[in-house]
Amino acid sequence: MSGKKPLILVSNDDGITSRGIRALVETMMELGEVVVVAPNSPQSGMGHAITVGNTLRLDRSTAFEDEGIAAYECSGTPADCVKLAKHHVLKDRRPDLVVSGINHGSNSSVSVLYSGTMSAAIEAALEGLPAIGFSLCDYSSTADFSHTLEYVRAIALQALQYGVPPDVALNVNLPARTEQPIRGVKVCRQAKAKWTEVFDQRKDPYGRSYYWMAGNFVNFDKGEDTDEWALSNNFISIVPCTFDLTAHYALPQLNRWKL
Amino acid sequence: MSGKKPLILVSNDDGITSRGIRALVETMMELGEVVVVAPNSPQSGMGHAITVGNTLRLDRSTAFEDEGIAAYECSGTPADCVKLAKHHVLKDRRPDLVVSGINHGSNSSVSVLYSGTMSAAIEAALEGLPAIGFSLCDYSSTADFSHTLEYVRAIALQALQYGVPPDVALNVNLPARTEQPIRGVKVCRQAKAKWTEVFDQRKDPYGRSYYWMAGNFVNFDKGEDTDEWALSNNFISIVPCTFDLTAHYALPQLNRWKL
Repeated sequence: MSGKKPLILVSNDDGITSRGIRALVETMMELGEVVVVAPNSPQSGMGHAITVGNTLRLDRSTAFEDEGIAAYECSGTPADCVKLAKHHVLKDRRPDLVVSGINHGSNSSVSVLYSGTMSAAIEAALEGLPAIGFSLCDYSSTADFSHTLEYVRAIALQALQYGVPPDVALNVNLPARTEQPIRGVKVCRQAKAKWTEVFDQRKDPYGRSYYWMAGNFVNFDKGEDTDEWALSNNFISIVPCTFDLTAHYALPQLNRWKL
Repeated sequence: MSGKKPLILVSNDDGITSRGIRALVETMMELGEVVVVAPNSPQSGMGHAITVGNTLRLDRSTAFEDEGIAAYECSGTPADCVKLAKHHVLKDRRPDLVVSGINHGSNSSVSVLYSGTMSAAIEAALEGLPAIGFSLCDYSSTADFSHTLEYVRAIALQALQYGVPPDVALNVNLPARTEQPIRGVKVCRQAKAKWTEVFDQRKDPYGRSYYWMAGNFVNFDKGEDTDEWALSNNFISIVPCTFDLTAHYALPQLNRWKL
């Protein structure tokens, strides 16, 4: 951390003009040199999608001109943004840290699977870069991030100083602003939960059916070591996420199959 | 397995008209009653994307009319298809098995993260349903699946008879047809590897830049217990994939952070 300022790549999934990425960029400017590569439109729910069989646009953005920050907007997904940043925009420089967010909305528990915010962080982890995704438990486009920024700064600083464990991206979820102050930070495991969908079937003006998907989050997990427990008790949650999906516990059972 | 025929839900990411889903449907018809809910257009590389903030279409499809199979085509992603199947099309029936594919192209190693095929299977696992994604290591739209179908049938039959380990979706990759017969089936872990991207920058007719992303797969993993080893030795690979991304080994290191 001494000498040269660390290079911090910032991306997100709500798009380059969202309030959340602005809060994150301003916080990271206190810690290093910031470069932004982010989607040019909202990409919520994109999971770990990438652009296959189609072209990508990448253009200079004026979104952070006043701050003197180099920024690029991309037509693709959050994972595309990190790939373009690593192999094109920053091909001759290695970021010391990749941060994504701050997402407008929680990415705790199984929501991590659907999260564009976390796909940017996991893509960076695949590249061997220390990576953190930040999400605020408030979906509003006018969400207030101010009560979280000292923690966002502290977590990023620890990652710069000590590194992130290998092959891991951190999934950091931040409680929404309430009258109670945040109680601290908990390192957690991902709660076992699911989304139960309700499909609202409607008719378009031409008489054809269409659907709105609305989800209800159902937490089956009573553990006090989970991200859901931490957030519901006004703690910030940090879950280290791996990209090795192998369920090692399942290997013996499958080896008994007759194949 | 005795008595009533099992109900098998089939989805994919290449779209309902692809050859791969047809091969899978025909194979599953030997094992049970088949219902198809699949995308109405190719969804490769969609990862675990879902449709958020937009509407979905779901229409009856004639794709498997000759076989007497109920089929639905959906405007959304593979994960959307499984959600619509579980909570709308089959809301009063519980599938005994969910299969996805057969994908035109490998989804081994880290490609599982980008895979729409596997997102359908993982979405089903989140719903507590036994689920398998099948992928052929041949990207061609005219790929030959015939040499794999006895194995696809056998694997699905084992899943129907013994169930799939809890909270797991199976990622099954099938060697492309060569002159050598398939040597058998290996239960594997996900190989440690990455895609290194090359961005081919071009100019459109208006003089503006655009990019094609082209990836090179780099396998760092010399283990003989990996999916990559199995496939390169002409075995079928089965990796049990979890949706709990928690990297438990990383928790102690993070608990030493000063936060």
